[in-house]
Formats: sequence, C-alpha cells, structure tokens
Amino acid sequence: MRAVVLAAGEGKRLRPFSKRPKPLVPLLGISLIERNILALREWGIKEFIIVTGCYDMEIREYLGSGKKLEVEIKYLFNPDWKLGNGVSAYTFHKEYCRDEKFVLMMCDHIFQPDLLKNFLAKAQDLGQGEVLLAADRRLENIYDLDECTKIKADGACALGLGKGLDDFNAVDCGLFIGTGGLLEALSEAVSKKQYAFTDAINILAASGRVKLHFIQGSWVDVDDPESLRHAEKILLHSLVPAKDSVVSKYINRKFSLRITKLLATTGITPNQVTVVSFLTAAASAFCFAAATPILGGLLAQLCSIIDGVDGEIARLKFQKSSFGGIFDSILDRYADFIIVIGMTYSWYFNTHSPAALLVGAAAVTGMPMSMLFKEKFHALTGKQFVTEVHDGIFRYLPANRDGRLFIVMVGGIFNLLPAALVFLAVITHLQTFFRLYNARKLM
Amino acid sequence: MRAVVLAAGEGKRLRPFSKRPKPLVPLLGISLIERNILALREWGIKEFIIVTGCYDMEIREYLGSGKKLEVEIKYLFNPDWKLGNGVSAYTFHKEYCRDEKFVLMMCDHIFQPDLLKNFLAKAQDLGQGEVLLAADRRLENIYDLDECTKIKADGACALGLGKGLDDFNAVDCGLFIGTGGLLEALSEAVSKKQYAFTDAINILAASGRVKLHFIQGSWVDVDDPESLRHAEKILLHSLVPAKDSVVSKYINRKFSLRITKLLATTGITPNQVTVVSFLTAAASAFCFAAATPILGGLLAQLCSIIDGVDGEIARLKFQKSSFGGIFDSILDRYADFIIVIGMTYSWYFNTHSPAALLVGAAAVTGMPMSMLFKEKFHALTGKQFVTEVHDGIFRYLPANRDGRLFIVMVGGIFNLLPAALVFLAVITHLQTFFRLYNARKLM
Repeated sequence: MRAVVLAAGEGKRLRPFSKRPKPLVPLLGISLIERNILALREWGIKEFIIVTGCYDMEIREYLGSGKKLEVEIKYLFNPDWKLGNGVSAYTFHKEYCRDEKFVLMMCDHIFQPDLLKNFLAKAQDLGQGEVLLAADRRLENIYDLDECTKIKADGACALGLGKGLDDFNAVDCGLFIGTGGLLEALSEAVSKKQYAFTDAINILAASGRVKLHFIQGSWVDVDDPESLRHAEKILLHSLVPAKDSVVSKYINRKFSLRITKLLATTGITPNQVTVVSFLTAAASAFCFAAATPILGGLLAQLCSIIDGVDGEIARLKFQKSSFGGIFDSILDRYADFIIVIGMTYSWYFNTHSPAALLVGAAAVTGMPMSMLFKEKFHALTGKQFVTEVHDGIFRYLPANRDGRLFIVMVGGIFNLLPAALVFLAVITHLQTFFRLYNARKLM
Repeated sequence: MRAVVLAAGEGKRLRPFSKRPKPLVPLLGISLIERNILALREWGIKEFIIVTGCYDMEIREYLGSGKKLEVEIKYLFNPDWKLGNGVSAYTFHKEYCRDEKFVLMMCDHIFQPDLLKNFLAKAQDLGQGEVLLAADRRLENIYDLDECTKIKADGACALGLGKGLDDFNAVDCGLFIGTGGLLEALSEAVSKKQYAFTDAINILAASGRVKLHFIQGSWVDVDDPESLRHAEKILLHSLVPAKDSVVSKYINRKFSLRITKLLATTGITPNQVTVVSFLTAAASAFCFAAATPILGGLLAQLCSIIDGVDGEIARLKFQKSSFGGIFDSILDRYADFIIVIGMTYSWYFNTHSPAALLVGAAAVTGMPMSMLFKEKFHALTGKQFVTEVHDGIFRYLPANRDGRLFIVMVGGIFNLLPAALVFLAVITHLQTFFRLYNARKLM
C-alpha cells in the first residue's frame, strides 16, 4: 500500500514560533513529516507521495528521494494549495493506479504508533468506492475540540462531517484509507468549487460510503506550540510498555523518559547510551570495591534507569536494530556481573569470611539465569516469555533486572551488602527453579 | 498426506532369530513398524493405514488405535498375503479417496530421517496417474545388492524393474508416493495374477509413469540379524549433526553413541540422562574442591559426553520436547558454574592468591556467554547462530561447551587448574567480544 501525505498548507499558527516550515518542525528530534513517514514505514509502507504547496522546495530539499529514510518518495506540487486541502488530495489522481487502496494522512497529525498499526490492518475490509476514516469518539479526551472536524456517526458509518456540526458523536483524526471512489468524490467536489477535503468526504457520506474506524490510542493535530508539546507527551508516553515492572513503572520511567526527552534532540544513538549504562555499572562496581556503598548503590540504580533510555530512544527515533538489541543484552549481563563482583569484593576483603565468596558466586551465577531461560523459551516455543503471564505467583519476585538493581541500591544505601547478595542469590535461583518446574505446563 | 504401511508378510529370514513377528522386532528400543510411523510423524504425517496379513492380531494389539504414538491408525487385513505384496498394497483401494496422494512404505525398510523428509517434499510435483519411487544409484554402497529390486532408469524415469534385472543403474528403496494411477495398475496386475508389487510398477513404467527420486542418505531393508545390525549403525550415525565440533567429533561421539545404543533398549528418558550429566558435573566439582583434580577433570569430560547422550536418545526415540531442551540448557549452565567454582575453590584455598578469585570470577561469568549470545541472536534474527558459519576464524576457539569441558579435563589431569581457568576466562570473553564486534555485519 502507498501513502499520500498532504503537506501543502502554510501552517500559519505555528509559523511565528518556528523558523522552519511546519512539516519540518522538529518533534523530539525528528520533523513532523519525517516522523509520519517513519511511523508508517514501521508497519510496512515503503512508497510515499507527498503533496506539496507552500513549502515545495524546502520539503523536497529536506527529504530528497527518501533514500536516507529507506523509503521511496515522489512529490506532487499543487500550485492551488491556497484553495484548500481537497485540491491537494485530488492532485494524487495523476498517480493513482486502478483499484489501488492508499493511506492518506495530514503531515501534521501525530499518532501513537500502535494506533497506526491497528488502522492499517482494517484496509483489507474496505470496498472499492468507499473510504475508511479514523475517528475518535472519546469526546471528553479530544485535544482542542473546537478546531476538530466533527462527525455525525451511525454505528461505523459517517452520516456527515463538518467543523461547525452541532450534533456529533465523534471527531475526524485526519487519517484515511482511500480508494478510487475517494478520488471521484474529490473530482466532483473540486468541479463544484468545494475545495475542502471534508466536502469530498461529505459527498461519499451521503451515499453511506464513509466507514469509520474508532481508534483507541492518542493523537493530536499539531497546530501551535501547545499542541506540539502535547504531541511530545503522547510520544513519550507511548514508549512505556503495557507490561512494565513495578520498579520500572514507579521509579525508572520517571527519570528515563526525562533523559530520553533531553537526548532525543541530540545525535546521541541508543548504542552510545548502552555504553554509558555499562560505564555507570562499572563506576558502581568500583564504588562498592572502594568501600563507598551508598554511591555504588545509587550508581547501580542509575545504570538501571539509563538501561531504559537506549530502548526508549531507539523506539522514539525509529533506530531499533538487531545489533542494538544484542549489544544491550550482552553489555547488561557484563554490567550485572561486575556490580555483583564489586559487592562481593567489598564484603570479602572487609571480613575475609568464606561465606562472602560462596554467596558472591551464587549471586553472580544467578544474574544471567532469567535471560537465559527467557531466550531459550522463546527459541524453543516461538513465543515471548512474559513474566506477568508465565511466572504465576513468582512474577512478584524482583528477579528481573530492574528488581535486581533496585536490591543492589537498597543494599548499598543501607550498607547491607551481605543481605543484598544473599537476597539476589536466593531470588534468581529460586525463580529459575520455579520456571523449570513450571516449564512442563507452559511448553 | 496419509501413509500406507505394508506389514503383511511373514519375515521368514528373521523369524528364527526373534520371538516377535518381524514388524514388531525392536531396533534400538523401538519396533520396526513403530519406528517408521514415528519417523513419518516427524514430518507431519498423522494418518496411517497398516495392511496386515500373517501377524494381523499381533500388530493390532501392539499398536492399537495409534493414540499412544499420537497418530491415527486404521488396519486393512489381507487374507491373501501369501500371494504377494502387490495384493497387500491393492487392499488400500477400499480406503482410497479420489485424487489423493499417499506414501507407501514397507514396514521393514529403515531410512535415515532426513532422507524421508526430502522424499516427502517431492510429492507435490507428482502428477495424478504417476508414482514416485525412492531409488538409490550409489550401487557401490548398496547393502545386500542381490536381494534388492533393480531399476533400469533413464534420467529420473524408470524403464523397468526386477530382482533379476541384469542391466540396471539404480535400486528400489521400497518407498513410494502413490496416486490413483498406482491403484489402477495394481488392480490390472492382480487381475492378471501378477501379485508382486513390482508387477504393478512395471505396468506404469511401460508408459513412463514411474518417476524416480534419487536419495542421498542411508537406508536398509531389514531381513536378517545382520541387516538389523546395519540398521542400528545407520540410525546411530544419523544422530551426529552435520556440523559437530572437533572435540565432539573425535572424542565425545565415540563414547556417547555407545552409551546411547546401550540406553536405547531401556526405558531411561533423555531428561533422566540430563540429570545424570548434571550430577556428574557436581561430582567433578566436588573432586576439584577435594583436591583430586585428575578425577575432577575426567568427570568433567564424562559430563560433556553424557551431555550428548540426552539429545541422541531424544532424537533416536522420537522423544524430543521443548521442556527437554530448556531443562538441558539450564542444567548445563549450572553444571558449568559448579565445575568452575570447584576449580577456583581448589586454587584459592591452596594458595590464598587473590588472583584465583579474579580469574575464577572471570571464568564463571564467561561460561554462559556463548549461549546468551546465540539465543539472543536467534530471537532477534530468527536464524540459528552456527559457530561454523558465523564465528569466522574464531570458530577454532574451543569456547563452546565441548571445548570448555575438554580444557577443564586437561587442566585437571595435568593439575594445571590456574592455567585452565585463565584459558577459559580468556577464550569465553574473547569469543563474546568478537561476536559483538562481528554482529553488525551478521544481523
């Protein structure tokens, strides 16, 4: 499926606040239009048609052929962009291939990534001649309702649309699956000098051909600095996985999202963050060995926080890679090892108790077991191992990485390294034994 | 696809040597007919039609409905089994469904598992009216050539078959994909009182409808005690993976295959062997700690050998399971850990050198890294990580489990625990660093 991105308008309301044309205004390190292209690329769309107008040259220069983004971009210039966005959308008829379905989106609408995925999946059910419109019926949550195009919906069918509609029960999110029928309606509207995109949609709505997909996630139409900040919030919030551990949810994400927001505007890569996380662990281990356990503990927790940042930046800036995944996994294991070794060193050389060595060995060997089990489970069954789903009552054990490093922090702050090491050793191996015991049922 | 298994004959030549009917004669712990059913089940065949004759009752009683083997078995009794195996094969016409293709095999032919897989994959290219025959043209390797049915082949097409054929260039392996055409030929042959299966095949060959698939792997027609022993050899040999490490190839398999052969006839399960392998590692660790390094080293090598046996038995007896896979992986990691801890204990409490602790920690943390990397690579790329393919020049590093435990053995026998531990630490981490360095290219 190809995507048509409308980027012809002037973006008047944002203009005074930015030196750049609106489609090129950066949002967490990536321009609005680039972000929408990359978001669609994530779900398999590789060919884009950008309809330009006011900022034709600037946009062409900025995005080029799309090679840098690993997509293919064609441009259509609409000299009459001032007339309305219906004229811009209609420009696509020159490129349209018979019986094609296409995504049509505004360059300045920002969506939570999952929302796009769910919407695109509905394209296959759409008949030729119809149009699918992403609509939001959670009216109490709509950002800047006044500015939105309202919809009067009957079930999943739109009866009429308009900005000034009084009787409405949903709003238009500016995201469509179009067909030949849409282009015919656009042609009809333009010939009647009805130049707004909504005019064409209303023509189709009159014959019951506007289907609605009611979205679940967040979105915003970026018009002014305030809505740009709202878009930032939506994107940062979308980085938190549905199943987050307790430590991550209540501690790590509070910090990591702030760090991610700061770093997003720089050129720092996820892999560089992974290295910093590892170096923080090394500093933590050194502090434990140098008998400054409070600092050691805090650095361990910082390492845990930064460990979230690499993934967040990767997702936020579409920089996920297999190499990044394995680099992070392996460095995390080394980080775990050296922290526990630093703690054991401190305990043993303070007390010369052989118990320190025994417990240290037990803790260090326990550290990689969670990952070992999970990855092997995945390899053998093809399914992700999810603590919250597969670990039963043991999901409350803080034996995942966030939990383990939190224990290290507590042990450091209260100078209770032996207790922390014993606890780490016990929970990691206990978790492994439980998982093995449970594996027969799960596999 | 359904499978028809011919098991009607008397098996005269094996009779004097066995108390059981030939199809039920055990081969490495599993009867001939069961082995063929399970081998086909591995490649997705779940419905079987067994044609019985001489041992009708015995076979029905032994195999039942097939529930125990997780397949569905129907029986067809051929009262005229003495006439010839063409009559037995023809019995299937009562069950045949229009346009169906089916596997037809003799219950007493044993094949290397891969061979079956490759043969079955060819079924889809076969036209209705034709028959596909597994043929072997490596005449110099044929077991008991005199007893074989010979084929005169022109390319991948059979011109004629017969036991007494003088001019031949391949032999018939007793494995077929049949169609309605085969049953018609059988009907024609039987009506002409030509009761051998080969008679029907010759009818089809006369019109160019016998296609040949030239097999690569090993097979044997089990007729007498000698060929039964040959079948054992084939099956045991098929347990050795194509890519085996040097230590495994030249040391471990020599022993593990012998152990597997012994254990195959018992009820010992692969998971029980896994536990024994772990206990051997525990004994090895204890011997190191108790300052008997020679025994410690030998037990470590024994652990490595037994570690091969669980997988061999699982494959040989069709007992592979996801649980077995993860149980083995996790217990192997624990075995590695305790052996290295035992060695470190011995070094440290003999010398009180802090270097022992440092090196021990480095070695113990290096042990799981190979598996961690491999499994993560698999999870991220969907491809198996294969040392021989992906490790470049580092594939010669003995950092896989066989290699590591071999180093432990050498270290133990020559009482060079510090050197062995240093070597283990260096190669395991070196391998990990190399793999990470190389991962960008591979992923």
